[in-house]
Amino acid sequence: MASEGLNRADGRGFDQLRPVNITRGYLKTADGSVLISMGETRVLCTATVEDKSPPFLKGTGRGWVTAEYSMLPRSSRIRVPRESRLGRVGGRTHEIQRLIGRSLRAVCDLGLLGERTVIVDCDVLQADGGTRTASVTGAYVALVDTLSALVSTGEISSLPVVDSVAAVSVGIVKGRTLLDLNYEEDSNADVDMNVIMTGGAKIVEIQGTAEQKAFSREEMLCLVDMAEKGIRELTALQKSLSL
Amino acid sequence: MASEGLNRADGRGFDQLRPVNITRGYLKTADGSVLISMGETRVLCTATVEDKSPPFLKGTGRGWVTAEYSMLPRSSRIRVPRESRLGRVGGRTHEIQRLIGRSLRAVCDLGLLGERTVIVDCDVLQADGGTRTASVTGAYVALVDTLSALVSTGEISSLPVVDSVAAVSVGIVKGRTLLDLNYEEDSNADVDMNVIMTGGAKIVEIQGTAEQKAFSREEMLCLVDMAEKGIRELTALQKSLSL
Amino acid sequence: MASEGLNRADGRGFDQLRPVNITRGYLKTADGSVLISMGETRVLCTATVEDKSPPFLKGTGRGWVTAEYSMLPRSSRIRVPRESRLGRVGGRTHEIQRLIGRSLRAVCDLGLLGERTVIVDCDVLQADGGTRTASVTGAYVALVDTLSALVSTGEISSLPVVDSVAAVSVGIVKGRTLLDLNYEEDSNADVDMNVIMTGGAKIVEIQGTAEQKAFSREEMLCLVDMAEKGIRELTALQKSLSL
Amino acid sequence: MASEGLNRADGRGFDQLRPVNITRGYLKTADGSVLISMGETRVLCTATVEDKSPPFLKGTGRGWVTAEYSMLPRSSRIRVPRESRLGRVGGRTHEIQRLIGRSLRAVCDLGLLGERTVIVDCDVLQADGGTRTASVTGAYVALVDTLSALVSTGEISSLPVVDSVAAVSVGIVKGRTLLDLNYEEDSNADVDMNVIMTGGAKIVEIQGTAEQKAFSREEMLCLVDMAEKGIRELTALQKSLSL
Amino acid sequence: MASEGLNRADGRGFDQLRPVNITRGYLKTADGSVLISMGETRVLCTATVEDKSPPFLKGTGRGWVTAEYSMLPRSSRIRVPRESRLGRVGGRTHEIQRLIGRSLRAVCDLGLLGERTVIVDCDVLQADGGTRTASVTGAYVALVDTLSALVSTGEISSLPVVDSVAAVSVGIVKGRTLLDLNYEEDSNADVDMNVIMTGGAKIVEIQGTAEQKAFSREEMLCLVDMAEKGIRELTALQKSLSL
Amino acid sequence: MASEGLNRADGRGFDQLRPVNITRGYLKTADGSVLISMGETRVLCTATVEDKSPPFLKGTGRGWVTAEYSMLPRSSRIRVPRESRLGRVGGRTHEIQRLIGRSLRAVCDLGLLGERTVIVDCDVLQADGGTRTASVTGAYVALVDTLSALVSTGEISSLPVVDSVAAVSVGIVKGRTLLDLNYEEDSNADVDMNVIMTGGAKIVEIQGTAEQKAFSREEMLCLVDMAEKGIRELTALQKSLSL
Repeated sequence: MASEGLNRADGRGFDQLRPVNITRGYLKTADGSVLISMGETRVLCTATVEDKSPPFLKGTGRGWVTAEYSMLPRSSRIRVPRESRLGRVGGRTHEIQRLIGRSLRAVCDLGLLGERTVIVDCDVLQADGGTRTASVTGAYVALVDTLSALVSTGEISSLPVVDSVAAVSVGIVKGRTLLDLNYEEDSNADVDMNVIMTGGAKIVEIQGTAEQKAFSREEMLCLVDMAEKGIRELTALQKSLSL
Repeated sequence: MASEGLNRADGRGFDQLRPVNITRGYLKTADGSVLISMGETRVLCTATVEDKSPPFLKGTGRGWVTAEYSMLPRSSRIRVPRESRLGRVGGRTHEIQRLIGRSLRAVCDLGLLGERTVIVDCDVLQADGGTRTASVTGAYVALVDTLSALVSTGEISSLPVVDSVAAVSVGIVKGRTLLDLNYEEDSNADVDMNVIMTGGAKIVEIQGTAEQKAFSREEMLCLVDMAEKGIRELTALQKSLSL
Repeated sequence: MASEGLNRADGRGFDQLRPVNITRGYLKTADGSVLISMGETRVLCTATVEDKSPPFLKGTGRGWVTAEYSMLPRSSRIRVPRESRLGRVGGRTHEIQRLIGRSLRAVCDLGLLGERTVIVDCDVLQADGGTRTASVTGAYVALVDTLSALVSTGEISSLPVVDSVAAVSVGIVKGRTLLDLNYEEDSNADVDMNVIMTGGAKIVEIQGTAEQKAFSREEMLCLVDMAEKGIRELTALQKSLSL
Repeated sequence: MASEGLNRADGRGFDQLRPVNITRGYLKTADGSVLISMGETRVLCTATVEDKSPPFLKGTGRGWVTAEYSMLPRSSRIRVPRESRLGRVGGRTHEIQRLIGRSLRAVCDLGLLGERTVIVDCDVLQADGGTRTASVTGAYVALVDTLSALVSTGEISSLPVVDSVAAVSVGIVKGRTLLDLNYEEDSNADVDMNVIMTGGAKIVEIQGTAEQKAFSREEMLCLVDMAEKGIRELTALQKSLSL
Repeated sequence: MASEGLNRADGRGFDQLRPVNITRGYLKTADGSVLISMGETRVLCTATVEDKSPPFLKGTGRGWVTAEYSMLPRSSRIRVPRESRLGRVGGRTHEIQRLIGRSLRAVCDLGLLGERTVIVDCDVLQADGGTRTASVTGAYVALVDTLSALVSTGEISSLPVVDSVAAVSVGIVKGRTLLDLNYEEDSNADVDMNVIMTGGAKIVEIQGTAEQKAFSREEMLCLVDMAEKGIRELTALQKSLSL
Repeated sequence: MASEGLNRADGRGFDQLRPVNITRGYLKTADGSVLISMGETRVLCTATVEDKSPPFLKGTGRGWVTAEYSMLPRSSRIRVPRESRLGRVGGRTHEIQRLIGRSLRAVCDLGLLGERTVIVDCDVLQADGGTRTASVTGAYVALVDTLSALVSTGEISSLPVVDSVAAVSVGIVKGRTLLDLNYEEDSNADVDMNVIMTGGAKIVEIQGTAEQKAFSREEMLCLVDMAEKGIRELTALQKSLSL
């Protein structure tokens, strides 16, 4: 609907993603290093392979994929104190990095990976909403680039990845269902939902929260449908990279 | 359906809750103190009112509700080391206590509460799956009991609670959609979902995770519908307590 | 003496214990799990066996028994902040758990135990004075139940326990020597003493502190004698359980 | 008995203290700074006055006396890792510094002290048994020297100290009751007891522990009597300093 | 000497800087945000003004400038674990951020700044030697940009900066004195020196370390002279930005 | 110049060291234990050998020398809180102990040392400026004494030390270049420099900081020359000990 496109502060349609950009090979120091931007949100995703599994998998022949997430102090208008100074990783950080890790594992064949651990680091350079979903979408690319390098060197026989994965936020703001909320919209949302789907449009994770008022089964469905539309576009972008 | 009842290890039907028990006034030391059991899962929920808001609400006239969650070391067959010994609160704990806090705030009128903080402590005495959802359901009762005491003494003019809230887990295990998973079932689930709803059957929070394989929009709907059935029963139990 | 019974706030005689209750098998998740109550004080004691000694005993063929103690946040009228949040175990906690550990080791044959570590967790559900002494008395029962299970399965040839152990507090309050102080009495005590004795009425540990004024050798003797009386009763109760 | 004097490894009688030396004004940087040696054990005790009470005494007009204890890394033949490196104060340290603090408070008039906090630091330069009791004896002198300086300057009207305090260890080693155990003796003790008494020979604190075997009421009395003998000598030494 | 230029692995002359690039306004979220690159070393420097001094300056009318430094995990070929995970800021980090803070304060008029704190964050995106010196050079630009914004809004009457500051590393590698060492050269250096100078070519800080063998007064002078040459070029670049 | 000697508050000439005293064998518990005093500054240096290298040297046949530094709480007129209480080692401490470690390694043959770690502990009993340089000078003596003991027992074939090392501070105070600053002078210094040199008068480390105003190349040379004079005297003292 044309009229919808006129109503968001940045001129986007209600079901329109912000401009997305994925830069591979952002760092010379890491095989898989990706800068993903969604609008003003910019996240640096890198993947590192370590040659052993975590203790709970030792001897099983299976590997693990995990993630760490952090915001640089001035990724935000109000400076975010460093967690290293506070001496502990905060609750929000834990929640996000666990989400990213689960999402990546959902599309990996951990048996094929063998007893290795892949750590995907997602460091937010600039935050304008949707940093966790941008992290998932970018982390997938960094992961594949790193694992492809292992395949190239013959360390792994074939790519231990069974599908792609991407994520987007949706929400209900002032009665309107919106795709890919920026910080301003997110701050005013009644409902906030993050959806993570495979390239085959199956759900890997859905997290919907009533920030201001509880929502109905029908509203939930609208949100999921709009998220699916956005994720299909992100998946298409990932595919266009010929990973 | 009679046939369904035959298929779960503990003899329950697929859409049947475990026996639920809510004991109010469990401790003499706290106005709101509730022991909730769902099958073998037992959680002690207590609510404490402190006479100031957190810093970010100071001067706004509004209050806050927050939660802390912990498992006693032998709530589990394998002893869980104390987080006090490790010197930090773990990621899973952070994730759960943030969920409980959000769920309770969703049914509170924080302006009516005034500049107070309610801390709801959920300590798991025995764990057999569903500890976070049992915590939400029990925490609501402890919260109301504590706030009612404030109303009785005239500190608050009326109960700053706008609806009830309850939670349950659902999942897909070996192709079957199950309500209220115990530990054994949870360990084998392909999909695990926690749903939190108000007494009016609106969704407060939904968190669905593909533990083993991604799920479809249709499977998501089945899970939500079954969760709604369970939550209606828990809501009825909460109402029967005449809080 | 009849007149003494009239003088304590809860109607007890000066040398009378509060009602004591020991519930074995309190949790399904632990072989040795005991809820002990002394009046309103309620402590959950569980024992866990791990299959290795601490580093300083490695290779000696000897085992170790240690304890951890914690108060649930609302075990007290004033909420006690969680030590996991503070990021460290406090001085009082350290002091108490070291006391419990020493007391249990005093009645164990650590050579017979072999290179194993038993961790006894004492978690205070409700505190009304005497939590550390109740912990010792209950921990002994949890310890024996756990070790008996090891004997049953043949992992240990015979019970590595050489005597029972129990504990009680005594004190001087307003000039009167009292047995088994509750919180109110403890807060007003001039002298506070914890005594731990074996079933054979030998002293394992004695800790007497002048909270308000120093005490004489004679007062010390009166306190120890009254403690012995109380511990004999606790020992009788432990024996009645046919551990 | 003369024969007793022949039996200890260092030639002391069973009821004989090691040579004790108290050097006042050990540091130019602190009014109260004392080096106490008991045999090879050397502890530096300093006292610092801060111009406010701890939070729990704010507004009461009363002050507080507290202690901190630490062993220098090479105070011991086996290097003791620094607690600053470990990131936390250990259980033994907590136990000891709480003991020292309680002992000093037992002879102070905290109302007369006013809303001030005295921190007494006890740093062990060299350890050969009895560091906690030497700390108490030395800390008392440092405390009085510091408070006397406050009286001199008129900040406090009179010395808020009501009696002296000193401490010593006693123990049962190979069936013999010994006074003032050195490290070698302490390592072989069946029973270890620390006794803290006022100048008037009243008990401030008694802590007796069966390291190897439980002890009787009679043995306890012998230990206390021998400790009293030693403390009388330490008190005489403290008095000779004309504090 | 032309022949010298041929001898470094990257084709540089011995006294030649790597290509330097300073991008201002790198982030939209911070007034002063600079990306500085020196060869492959890339550091993001941002400056934040907080409206109060640190406690030790409270009430003096003076402000403070401080710095925090961190390496992103994959700024290095070998992943650097996050200090937030380790729970503490490491020694090298402390050393570097203290150096940056001192360097910036050396060119600030802290009285003119007033009771404010400027925090300059230096986050290394990619490390190839010289990250601390690049941080100083970039941090100066971020600092001026942030303070200029305060002057623009009238919060400060004039720029509280009295000179520019820049830094460079020099070293002795295989007998040759080199300017601006990259990682490879730094790893093989016998002597490593960091020099920080004002725009007026006065020394703010000099830190020279014999990594492999001690150096003479004459070698020290050669190093300082070469550093001065490099810093003059960096100063010229800073001036060309018309801060 | 005779007139210069008249101008320092303590009567010293501008280029004169404070009285230096080095006491070996200060503790019976450590082979290498040295008390060094420079004027009122007193530091206890002890050296401990552990029978393994740090992880990064494992299997290389090489050893390591490291240092730890700490100030006792009342080494200073204003009490310094314990880092063990704060739960972390501070930035200044890190900076100093890294400096001491580097200085000692510069004169050791780590291959000859073999896979051992020497930890040199420098604990400041009393601080009056120059604690880090006194630590280096004293630590060298403790190190040699400890290693000599290893040579005596045949554990090491020859002393793995190739030169002596000593350190001193210099500074510019009110326009005058001064040697060996005490606390009062250090607090008023415009420039503060620490110089560490071998017995052969080569520079191991130089750290010069403009505390108040930047300094010229010429001033730097004057400072280094004066430091060399002082270090030659300290070296002579070290040699006189016939280590």
